[in-house]
Amino acid sequence: MSPEPPHSAGRHFLLRLPKGADVWEWLADFCARESVKTAAVQIIGATEEVTIGYYDQVRRDYHKRTFRQEMEILSCAGNVSLKDGKPFPHLHACMGDVELKVWGGHLFAGSKVFAAEAHVVELLGPERERLPDAATGLTLWRCPEA
Amino acid sequence: MSPEPPHSAGRHFLLRLPKGADVWEWLADFCARESVKTAAVQIIGATEEVTIGYYDQVRRDYHKRTFRQEMEILSCAGNVSLKDGKPFPHLHACMGDVELKVWGGHLFAGSKVFAAEAHVVELLGPERERLPDAATGLTLWRCPEA
Amino acid sequence: MSPEPPHSAGRHFLLRLPKGADVWEWLADFCARESVKTAAVQIIGATEEVTIGYYDQVRRDYHKRTFRQEMEILSCAGNVSLKDGKPFPHLHACMGDVELKVWGGHLFAGSKVFAAEAHVVELLGPERERLPDAATGLTLWRCPEA
Repeated sequence: MSPEPPHSAGRHFLLRLPKGADVWEWLADFCARESVKTAAVQIIGATEEVTIGYYDQVRRDYHKRTFRQEMEILSCAGNVSLKDGKPFPHLHACMGDVELKVWGGHLFAGSKVFAAEAHVVELLGPERERLPDAATGLTLWRCPEA
Repeated sequence: MSPEPPHSAGRHFLLRLPKGADVWEWLADFCARESVKTAAVQIIGATEEVTIGYYDQVRRDYHKRTFRQEMEILSCAGNVSLKDGKPFPHLHACMGDVELKVWGGHLFAGSKVFAAEAHVVELLGPERERLPDAATGLTLWRCPEA
Repeated sequence: MSPEPPHSAGRHFLLRLPKGADVWEWLADFCARESVKTAAVQIIGATEEVTIGYYDQVRRDYHKRTFRQEMEILSCAGNVSLKDGKPFPHLHACMGDVELKVWGGHLFAGSKVFAAEAHVVELLGPERERLPDAATGLTLWRCPEA
């Protein structure tokens, strides 16, 4: 058995993001406004600007790159949980350029939506809280197995 | 508060697409047949042929490219809502080639399934209708914030 | 009408994978332990090592490649159904490298998690069983249309 009860689905939100919105900030604000503490998320659309990066597992910091060009959001998947008591999105994005080549990474604040559509599934049940994790240098949920 | 009520999950469909099917057409037909007006979708599989593209945000038209080669559907995410009164899929796809390189874009009609599996979540609640949007040249839902 | 009843959502699991876990094996074990027979899955995170590949539609075998380098799991989408009576994950992954380039394919056993977060939606209703399919050489569910 898992050491804690599972979640159940609460509200489903199917939403258009406003033109010009920052995807990360918009989602954090939306969840705060709607009191969504835990969620699963999938977003598609297009951006005029986007900031993605990867986590250097050895140096333990993020490398960011901002693409100031039109790109398709092919997939922007992840979740929302609590960090410092507030809803905190964790999203990974695949972005397509005009040659249909794909670039991807951890999504940071610093994007500008051209058009986008989000599916946010609220998860009811135990809260998930991000706490510093010594083994990775990230802020992670406590491991069910721990 | 959001200006309209959220959705709730209706039926979940976990389906195999027939060999030779066109992903976009198959999904539109399935939703029409099952009276699914609003849904969230994720598909994985492989195609013998696929048509993807991107939306030129300045010229305001789609550029399409058809790949006549075997590719993996790594992710094909999006939604179904109403356009002209009928269920209309909006899907973005990441496709993998034989070198494991990834190509991606907006999925158009014009694909041929080798094998594929879809998860379609029916969303019950307010209808989402695609209407012309002057700011982007696309057909979008009315913005919750508008 | 579809030839069989749809599914409904059961438990939602939002889980952190342990560092060092094999994604495929971890998910298969989790589902066996929790008696999850059918599910939809999305995972994001990062790996120290990952094995992906594609299915050669003509020769009818998988080509695998193991990446022994740090990569982001941008999307790892798919499902769980029964094969030989046991929960069997079918996942396709988009993986990002340190240049933010994306590689993708069918996910095999043979990965090593740095950090990862999974959303697993249990689907209640008819079982899905993987059986040999003569037309593709794969193990697939019986086609609803068949």
